[in-house]
Amino acid sequence: MGPLYAQRMSTIPKSFIREILKVTEDPEVISFAGGLPNPRFFPVEEITRAASDVLAGADVSALQYSTTEGYQPLREYIAQRYLKKKGLAVSANEILITNGSQQGLDLVGKVFIGKDDRIAIERPAYLGAIQAFALYEPLFCPVPLLEDGVDIDRLKDVLNGHRVKLFHTVINFQNPSGISYSQSKREELAELFSQHDAVVVEDDPYGELRFVGVAPQSMRSWLDGKAVLLGSFSKTIAPGLRLGWVCAKHETMDKLVVAKQASDLHSNSLCQRIVHQYLMSNDVDRHIETIIAAYKKQRDIMVAAIEDNFPAEVRFTRPEGGMFLWVTLPERLSALELFEHAVREKVAFVPGTPFFVDGGGTNSMRLNFSNENEDRIKEGIRRLGQIMKNLPAGGV
Amino acid sequence: MGPLYAQRMSTIPKSFIREILKVTEDPEVISFAGGLPNPRFFPVEEITRAASDVLAGADVSALQYSTTEGYQPLREYIAQRYLKKKGLAVSANEILITNGSQQGLDLVGKVFIGKDDRIAIERPAYLGAIQAFALYEPLFCPVPLLEDGVDIDRLKDVLNGHRVKLFHTVINFQNPSGISYSQSKREELAELFSQHDAVVVEDDPYGELRFVGVAPQSMRSWLDGKAVLLGSFSKTIAPGLRLGWVCAKHETMDKLVVAKQASDLHSNSLCQRIVHQYLMSNDVDRHIETIIAAYKKQRDIMVAAIEDNFPAEVRFTRPEGGMFLWVTLPERLSALELFEHAVREKVAFVPGTPFFVDGGGTNSMRLNFSNENEDRIKEGIRRLGQIMKNLPAGGV
Repeated sequence: MGPLYAQRMSTIPKSFIREILKVTEDPEVISFAGGLPNPRFFPVEEITRAASDVLAGADVSALQYSTTEGYQPLREYIAQRYLKKKGLAVSANEILITNGSQQGLDLVGKVFIGKDDRIAIERPAYLGAIQAFALYEPLFCPVPLLEDGVDIDRLKDVLNGHRVKLFHTVINFQNPSGISYSQSKREELAELFSQHDAVVVEDDPYGELRFVGVAPQSMRSWLDGKAVLLGSFSKTIAPGLRLGWVCAKHETMDKLVVAKQASDLHSNSLCQRIVHQYLMSNDVDRHIETIIAAYKKQRDIMVAAIEDNFPAEVRFTRPEGGMFLWVTLPERLSALELFEHAVREKVAFVPGTPFFVDGGGTNSMRLNFSNENEDRIKEGIRRLGQIMKNLPAGGV
Repeated sequence: MGPLYAQRMSTIPKSFIREILKVTEDPEVISFAGGLPNPRFFPVEEITRAASDVLAGADVSALQYSTTEGYQPLREYIAQRYLKKKGLAVSANEILITNGSQQGLDLVGKVFIGKDDRIAIERPAYLGAIQAFALYEPLFCPVPLLEDGVDIDRLKDVLNGHRVKLFHTVINFQNPSGISYSQSKREELAELFSQHDAVVVEDDPYGELRFVGVAPQSMRSWLDGKAVLLGSFSKTIAPGLRLGWVCAKHETMDKLVVAKQASDLHSNSLCQRIVHQYLMSNDVDRHIETIIAAYKKQRDIMVAAIEDNFPAEVRFTRPEGGMFLWVTLPERLSALELFEHAVREKVAFVPGTPFFVDGGGTNSMRLNFSNENEDRIKEGIRRLGQIMKNLPAGGV
């Protein structure tokens, strides 16, 4: 008879993170585990005003079925912002509104990935991308991240060896590593993909949260239709609204729209209007500056606390923005073991292994610095440092 | 090299309905085409009050990431309503909140359907189900609908002939046919599935909109975990909120939650709170009675107008609820040809062919009676009758 469930359901990795997040429900636990924005900066009053403005407009279309592509004025806003912020000429027709950028990943998987197709991902990779893509049963080709982006030589080998459908990258302040692609790395990437019939999925939920320096170019500026861009309002406005987008050209967009329609018809009409109204009535750039200032300070505090408390052998990234940094312990140490001790001391983080589809990462860990306030960051890092020094392997 | 896009994207049927809906954007066009609830009955004021109550609660969790399963109080409400309305003992843990019940279909497809798996569907079938499932590349086994539900003997042949993963049914006031399953038909269906390792997907977006009679039992009352139920707030509250649910037990629910997490993490937190707040502060049953009274009247007007205006050879269903009725022309006539004439007379409907995965239905059409007001229903049907009498094949 064969099994009742589809084969794809047995290939998806178990989400260890879901288990970890249960630990963090205890408010006493200092959590560096989740990927939550700091709710202090949710523009609650402004969203409330926007909601009542939208509903008072007596425009019932905010509650009716609407187009799969999304609310047209919101698509236009996003297209214009690409021009303003990245110098990209994007038409509103190239924007599809999704339920957060996680749905963008699912739609990309649906449109591009057949069973046993090869796709290149970063090593370590964003866990949500691994999960979304895994359901389409690809062969994952993980390519190591260096300090300034993916290892181009290794990626070249992957692309030359077999037909590869896409390369997924979180190009700014990567989740989980905190790494950003340099301008020259992007140029090399563009050169490489210009020679292959494959797309670069430029996943950029954190790009607006840059603490220092100037944003390098988007891959679309070289690759045009071969670059599929994912964006999100989750980190700049609020994630509970579940609004993100895919930016893609012509044929790819047509297919994404078909996949979106089959998946859930369209995204929430009311929240699309609310977000648009919010954007029209408020200075979102000023709001983002407030978030940047706070997260930068939180990152600085975490970095300083690590320098003060972690053993000198421990390496870690100093991200230029975003919400995460990445810690590498000496190879003999297990982040899972550290995690067990940490939970007893009421500190949580994500051990590195779930971000590696091919094993490895046992001595690495992801730390989130956006969600906890300053004192708790200091205290949590202090406790982690203490545990490291007392670990069974004789400390680090 | 092989194609860039996944094979599944070439199997999905083109949505003729999307083209039709463009025609209906002209406000002069009398549209029986869409499946839109009548916006007159959207509880705009109540939703506005619920939204400001939720946001005034200063509970930022309405804007934060939340659990994949959905807002717990809303899940509890739905579980309790199953008990109250259908006598089903459902736990809140058996409810997964989705982006409308269309996403429920996508998740069911993801969890159950592998390439070339056989699935049984109704003939004609709900177009959204065909689209959602087609992306998982099944072999569709369409089973004809009789006046009281699916043809059990034919379904038996399908189930006995090959391994079938699931049977999808819109059990009450089917879209597109308007047909409802009788109590005895449900008993036969339950008996049949008790002998097979396959699930019945009981898709019930219209069940609350019953004009006459008493609702027969849900398939879950016999089949328990073998029945997967889909529900929606789109037809009783408002579709723009994109909130529906899947009701399933244990192992199936676990897999649906994994698929949902990979698809978009979770449904819109804010709208889940708003809908729950609306349900707590208002008498939704009274609201539904208002909708029922109006739609029943609109159905009565459409049925009377058909009797008065369509040639006697034309057959049609008289649905006990919901939003659609189904018209069958004499076999020599083409609903597509009728459609072309109708559009010139500014009337739109959906010709039957898209609802048949195996061809057929050329002489049938779906008429929606929920969205147009009474005078326009009369006038639209009068025009259609006029065209039928003048059709090139000598009229009907």
